Amino acid sequence: MGCKMTTGCFITFEGPDGSGKTTQIQALHAYLARAGYRVLLVREPGGTEIGDQIRAILHDIKNVHMLPHAEALLYSASRAQLVGQIIRPALEAGSIVLCDRYAESTLAYQGYGHGLDMELLKAITLFATGGLRSDLIIYLDIDVEEGLRRRRGSFQTGAGEWNRMDQKELDFHRRVRAGYLAMATAEPERWFIVDATRSIAAIQNSIRERVKQLLTEKQIQPDPNAFVQPSGP
Amino acid sequence: MGCKMTTGCFITFEGPDGSGKTTQIQALHAYLARAGYRVLLVREPGGTEIGDQIRAILHDIKNVHMLPHAEALLYSASRAQLVGQIIRPALEAGSIVLCDRYAESTLAYQGYGHGLDMELLKAITLFATGGLRSDLIIYLDIDVEEGLRRRRGSFQTGAGEWNRMDQKELDFHRRVRAGYLAMATAEPERWFIVDATRSIAAIQNSIRERVKQLLTEKQIQPDPNAFVQPSGP
Repeated sequence: MGCKMTTGCFITFEGPDGSGKTTQIQALHAYLARAGYRVLLVREPGGTEIGDQIRAILHDIKNVHMLPHAEALLYSASRAQLVGQIIRPALEAGSIVLCDRYAESTLAYQGYGHGLDMELLKAITLFATGGLRSDLIIYLDIDVEEGLRRRRGSFQTGAGEWNRMDQKELDFHRRVRAGYLAMATAEPERWFIVDATRSIAAIQNSIRERVKQLLTEKQIQPDPNAFVQPSGP
Repeated sequence: MGCKMTTGCFITFEGPDGSGKTTQIQALHAYLARAGYRVLLVREPGGTEIGDQIRAILHDIKNVHMLPHAEALLYSASRAQLVGQIIRPALEAGSIVLCDRYAESTLAYQGYGHGLDMELLKAITLFATGGLRSDLIIYLDIDVEEGLRRRRGSFQTGAGEWNRMDQKELDFHRRVRAGYLAMATAEPERWFIVDATRSIAAIQNSIRERVKQLLTEKQIQPDPNAFVQPSGP
């Protein structure tokens, strides 16, 4: 557990698209920066020049024939570059690093969701990260049906209908959520599960309390020489 | 060993750049096609639309900061797509598949050459290939100094000089060659080592003899319905 061979602190955010993950990580970043901490916000896939080229392949809708094994390896390649080039040096310099998705996304989506070999995915993740694990994983938890409703206005307004693909997607996301919850149960000290149906402000307050506790445990102080961001919510 | 769950035959070519690998695989492809075999020639990285996008990242000279772990994962992602989309279906349809570089390149260059964790590289390769191994690996062997001389006209003509980078490159290529030879020694029935300093025609004759022997062993016959290529050496 903990940051290996580093002095900073590594916090990752997990949860389905539409859970408010990106809103919350940005608000936490602004809060910590205003409080005078050295803090860096990155995201996966991407975050480096090479990672952004990989992200473009992963997100190009023309690449519909991408096989799940190739997908998992591309995410891992982007992660290897991000860890080696950005995250590890920042942690070694004492920064707090916030990352929007990390290793646990691969285990949840490609492992629990798509059913790829979990032991091989763990080996690939160990290779890509060099064993760097986050100190804290903030998981924005939301009921799967509610999450799908949020992502689809058409269904909520009755314009859409439920079909085979919806059911398939529902089953997939149920497996992903069950996977996240299984990982959180196995390592409760490293995971913080947040009810993502509450208000943005209420969620942010819970996250800040948990992060302050971690910073105290790790004796991380604001840096008087850190650049203080002039704006933010 | 042998093709798992397939009826065709999978032959890969390995060896340093400048060994004549690509010339030889193209000549073998033309020979087998003229003889009426169903035969497919592919190369790594690339060989699919998604693989070609990955190849562009790997070969872009602007990407000088690419870390070796990211590089190994990108090669493996391209391989996963090529195996699943092209090679495995072709083998299942009974074709001979010739591939210019395959899994053993990752073990030789990233493992023996760059010193990355060999067990993790093997796990990644197992994940990328789904366990598909080649029936025969044709390794074009060449002395490291001779190979470097071939790749550099300037050194051969005395225009270049030997420097620290040359020495580093020499040591790297020595480790790669030693790795190839160690793998070949461990599985002599699956490797065919060819002396790449001989004439193109002499090398091609050796390769054809070894491949004919394999096709006989595997009882692979010319296909009367196969498309016969109109040209070739």
